[in-house]
Amino acid sequence: MKVLIVFAHPEPKSFNGALLEAAVETLSAGGHDVQVSDLYKLHFASGTTRSDFTTVADPDYLKYQIEEAKASTENGFATDIAEQQRRVVWCDHLILLYPLYWFHLPGILKGWVDRVMAAGFAYGGGKWYETAPLYGRRALLAFTMGAPQDRWADDTLFGPLDGILNPIRYGILNFCGFEALEPFVVYAPARITDDARRAYLDRWRERLLGLDRETPLPFRRAADFGAGRYRGAGS
Amino acid sequence: MKVLIVFAHPEPKSFNGALLEAAVETLSAGGHDVQVSDLYKLHFASGTTRSDFTTVADPDYLKYQIEEAKASTENGFATDIAEQQRRVVWCDHLILLYPLYWFHLPGILKGWVDRVMAAGFAYGGGKWYETAPLYGRRALLAFTMGAPQDRWADDTLFGPLDGILNPIRYGILNFCGFEALEPFVVYAPARITDDARRAYLDRWRERLLGLDRETPLPFRRAADFGAGRYRGAGS
Repeated sequence: MKVLIVFAHPEPKSFNGALLEAAVETLSAGGHDVQVSDLYKLHFASGTTRSDFTTVADPDYLKYQIEEAKASTENGFATDIAEQQRRVVWCDHLILLYPLYWFHLPGILKGWVDRVMAAGFAYGGGKWYETAPLYGRRALLAFTMGAPQDRWADDTLFGPLDGILNPIRYGILNFCGFEALEPFVVYAPARITDDARRAYLDRWRERLLGLDRETPLPFRRAADFGAGRYRGAGS
Repeated sequence: MKVLIVFAHPEPKSFNGALLEAAVETLSAGGHDVQVSDLYKLHFASGTTRSDFTTVADPDYLKYQIEEAKASTENGFATDIAEQQRRVVWCDHLILLYPLYWFHLPGILKGWVDRVMAAGFAYGGGKWYETAPLYGRRALLAFTMGAPQDRWADDTLFGPLDGILNPIRYGILNFCGFEALEPFVVYAPARITDDARRAYLDRWRERLLGLDRETPLPFRRAADFGAGRYRGAGS
């Protein structure tokens, strides 16, 4: 496997850090190739700005998707974005590893998605979902959260966990052609015993080595909704 | 009204920019107070790092919520966060104005939520939802998107719009004590006529002047789920 891990925790000593270390060790020892994009170490920018491009479609009016589309055909992405895109193309398995912040990706990781999964690169020209250029790759959301598992159910304050994961699964991963694997969720790592944490790490190592043999979650095919062709924003 | 607009579009000439301009003009002319946090102009950081604090709870291990809680009691937030928190406390209406990116807030705006709505400031010490320190304020999501309205329904590829808005409404706004107003959604502003855009701006101005007379969407009360008291992450 060629695994790209996009890591979005500011503290290497955190349980997220332990998951990252275990992943790199386990996958490497298993003969797989691993690359890590450590967004805090990279000081990865989150804002979508003109400096994301070396090419210019319209110098007077920044329409981000238009600039993305031009940059995609003319090799015009800024270095930090281009490097991440190379890694995404290289991988067959993408892992987003992060602490859950406000029921979604941390801002720094959301910014990675906003900037890297560009029009013309990840979708566009009629293509998305099952026709997306990156189709065939797999993606895994791996995250820690403060809350315990029983906070997530139909009749709880937070509701079912799928309520917050489906928009990412369908709207980011499937949209870009990635089949989503069952998420790896660590509940309340700060409040459990060392043994329970070790058990999480054991399960994590086991899962990682078998990622390519897992059956992905159902893929939302655009054609099934009569939307097989991406027709551009708002068309 | 005291209205804080958090604005997250990089292009002032965009329709988002037009909505911002209209809001400031209309509210000011109506005798209301307005402050604008223009995140791109501020180069607002998205990552949660140690430099977010002037106080230190643990110099060897960054546990962000612990540092937030300490900073909250000791006036220890970095200047950019402290300034935003002052504005949030000042306002009675909070407007998040942004382009929809990947079915959620843009990374730069998600980072604003991650960093500003801190433990000890927006929740904690037993308080959240209807007991949150900021309870009683109102919040409005105002956003543009590339897709037209008919893309959002039970039987479409994207599903109903509430599927992507509810996690923000319940998990960020209500969590922090804000009553959510009906979102203001602009569908595909780049693909509609000038007249249709003007009609949106007219509706926007009208809504703004009546925000304090609107009936908010149902508030998710924690007590209704037997979760009246915030018991700390993972407790």
